[in-house]
Amino acid sequence: MKANHIGKRSNEYSQAVDEIRHELGEEAVSTDPDDLEYHGFSDFSSTNATERPIAVVRPESTEQVSAIAKICTKYRVPMTPFGARTSVEGNFSSPFSGICIDLCEMDKIIQFNPQDMDVVVQPGVNWMALNEEIKDSGLFLPPDPGPTASIGGMVATNCSGTNAMRYGTMKDYVVNLTVVLADGTVIKTRQRPRKTSAGYNLNSLFTGSEGTLGIVTQATLKLAVLPTNLSVATAAFGSIHAAAAAATTMVRSGLPLTALELMDEAQMKSINEAGGTAGRMWAESPTLFLKFSGTKSSVKDSAQAAQAICRQHGASTFDHVTTPKEMDLLWSARKGAVLCIVAAKPKDAWILGTDVAVPISRMADIIEESKAKATHHGLTNCVIGHVGDGNYHQALIYHPGDPDEMAKLKDCHDTMVKRAIEMEGTVSECLIKELGPTTIGVMKALKDTLDPHWLLNPGKVFDE
Amino acid sequence: MKANHIGKRSNEYSQAVDEIRHELGEEAVSTDPDDLEYHGFSDFSSTNATERPIAVVRPESTEQVSAIAKICTKYRVPMTPFGARTSVEGNFSSPFSGICIDLCEMDKIIQFNPQDMDVVVQPGVNWMALNEEIKDSGLFLPPDPGPTASIGGMVATNCSGTNAMRYGTMKDYVVNLTVVLADGTVIKTRQRPRKTSAGYNLNSLFTGSEGTLGIVTQATLKLAVLPTNLSVATAAFGSIHAAAAAATTMVRSGLPLTALELMDEAQMKSINEAGGTAGRMWAESPTLFLKFSGTKSSVKDSAQAAQAICRQHGASTFDHVTTPKEMDLLWSARKGAVLCIVAAKPKDAWILGTDVAVPISRMADIIEESKAKATHHGLTNCVIGHVGDGNYHQALIYHPGDPDEMAKLKDCHDTMVKRAIEMEGTVSECLIKELGPTTIGVMKALKDTLDPHWLLNPGKVFDE
Repeated sequence: MKANHIGKRSNEYSQAVDEIRHELGEEAVSTDPDDLEYHGFSDFSSTNATERPIAVVRPESTEQVSAIAKICTKYRVPMTPFGARTSVEGNFSSPFSGICIDLCEMDKIIQFNPQDMDVVVQPGVNWMALNEEIKDSGLFLPPDPGPTASIGGMVATNCSGTNAMRYGTMKDYVVNLTVVLADGTVIKTRQRPRKTSAGYNLNSLFTGSEGTLGIVTQATLKLAVLPTNLSVATAAFGSIHAAAAAATTMVRSGLPLTALELMDEAQMKSINEAGGTAGRMWAESPTLFLKFSGTKSSVKDSAQAAQAICRQHGASTFDHVTTPKEMDLLWSARKGAVLCIVAAKPKDAWILGTDVAVPISRMADIIEESKAKATHHGLTNCVIGHVGDGNYHQALIYHPGDPDEMAKLKDCHDTMVKRAIEMEGTVSECLIKELGPTTIGVMKALKDTLDPHWLLNPGKVFDE
Repeated sequence: MKANHIGKRSNEYSQAVDEIRHELGEEAVSTDPDDLEYHGFSDFSSTNATERPIAVVRPESTEQVSAIAKICTKYRVPMTPFGARTSVEGNFSSPFSGICIDLCEMDKIIQFNPQDMDVVVQPGVNWMALNEEIKDSGLFLPPDPGPTASIGGMVATNCSGTNAMRYGTMKDYVVNLTVVLADGTVIKTRQRPRKTSAGYNLNSLFTGSEGTLGIVTQATLKLAVLPTNLSVATAAFGSIHAAAAAATTMVRSGLPLTALELMDEAQMKSINEAGGTAGRMWAESPTLFLKFSGTKSSVKDSAQAAQAICRQHGASTFDHVTTPKEMDLLWSARKGAVLCIVAAKPKDAWILGTDVAVPISRMADIIEESKAKATHHGLTNCVIGHVGDGNYHQALIYHPGDPDEMAKLKDCHDTMVKRAIEMEGTVSECLIKELGPTTIGVMKALKDTLDPHWLLNPGKVFDE
């Protein structure tokens, strides 16, 4: 990796910290060991670095972020943007140490334009707080990642969530971004029209680039109209294949689903082990979670059509609820799923989270294969699938100190990557195997152009 | 402009043509003057170059495009990719001469995957032919630009169309692209999963880049499910403001509209002057064109709600039709609008087409202002607006040989650009005024990286 040339040169690093302290004030810079540990390590992360940042800086404006970048470039110090620490993929770790730029103080809603259906926010804004703040306007920001996530991280990772099926991912909501480049240059990707194709699409280049091309310090985001009629249903199936077949049939029939999620029997079991959902215990079978929205009659029609399709594919249950309380209850099983896995695992065990996408028709196959392989190896594992998009996550529980288990884990992961690529799919952490060196070369050339010293979040995006 | 350093060096240019002829065969290369004129000039274009290509090459494969690019790079000859010649913005003109790469022979559907809801196509495929070919599967490609447009041009311009409101633009349908870079390198942007965030978003970087970063030689495209229930309505209003207010109210209420288009009184008049729509004459007032799709009951509910909103805003008519024949008839007025303007203009007059996007709430203002200014100057003009997105086109008729009219035209255009930017909007051909030199500098750095000699479609995207 190109970032390897960055050694930890303590003298330059501490000079940079001194200069930032001088520029931003004492209180903006922390070198408290607990603070460094909190910013460099996470229990939730599937990968953790051994290094820690040497300082955490909390800027309050685009100008301050620019000042930090100028100083870090001068001393060749890595910069790691830090959002809400919700990533399970270690996006905020500091494998090359350097300075962690925590954007938590930049948490203002700058401008809300209900008539234009957009909002201008700082990166530290929490999406649920934003939606709460603007709800009386009848508008909302659709992407729904983990509840504590902030806008900056959501842009950096092009986050999705259960609403992605109906509403798309974060990139579909970016109108413009204010970005600080590695050398401190500030750019605004475009003005505030909802639709435009003028010039190169910098919004989509920065969105999902994990802070490796620039640091987002402000964003204008499109908003959508809150649906007035909603309903939620769950359906339990005898097998992943049956559930996936029902899901594919619904998608192919054009049913206007807002969300379509699959959880396997192990995932449902972990919910029961955590005490169920407000006391409700679940069938421990592959289960589809469905959400409908639209006009009152279309919600009713869609739910009926969905029920018929689920029954055709052998669903043993179809629970359909329409009151806010019942909907929240049913859906909270899906929203709380990740926490149930964390709660269910042995204290000394770690979780490897994966992110795989394949063409829709291959999804049931690869899930079944991945589960069979892990089960064969005796590894506890469970699956959540965004079935409408052909994207799923398998969580694998392992003990990092056990070499035998580590070998089995590696076999599971390697097989999954190999199969995903054979199916023309992708595994988000294995870019090179998927795309090959020529395409990766183009991505690296773009990185070279915007961040010639590879100082921005080094060690991310490129996996070698 | 950086491309200015490219002089027309006849010796090198003709050597390049000879080598391409040697590589691809005699029949792939044309220097017929009519062919060069056809490829370098268009009546429909709002801008035309004085130069023409010195040769038109018709490759049949990615490998042949790569061979052409290698030769053109060797001799530093500009390459202009050419699709279906439907652009009204001169995307295919050759202001620096060079070689025109016409992709019309690459018109095969390579692979149709109905279960995965995607299709792999070459750039010369016509979108209407594609949709006809696959219609029995119940799937379609939603973007609906001019009927003769081809996939390559649709990707290069990130085209939209009347379906954009419901279905988004071309970038939302790109799963992967095979791209030939300036030096002949071939890359594939990613594999075939519908959803992924792995690595940088090269799909969105190449989509809309007008062939200035690479030549698309193959694309995998997402497909959507054909709606089973559709209806169409038109509503005439007393003013642009009233029509726009009705449109905004519909959008803000969350009505699931598939299309929402505005045509002004001048546009409606030009339809009547062309004989109306299959004999039907129209009220010469600002008119909204609406399309609904969904379940049977939601289409009905939505149309009723739309009618109520239009009436509230003073609509004098609301025609709602549901049979395929009636829908085609009503909608054909919208689809044929551009041809009516061409038919209505004096033979020696040209048309300046514009492409403006502003925040939704400012749309009525800027349209009224633009119309008032043109009318004040005595210039025939008309407006089509994609009201749901805040994007509109004003067409201005002028005589290029009349200096007085040219000055008035310039005043109209300059004022429109100035006002759009004041409203935080964009005019697609005036990038620098909108974004400023720093952001443009980043775009140019990306161009430098991928096409260091600025050989790919020079003179496009950057307007200075």
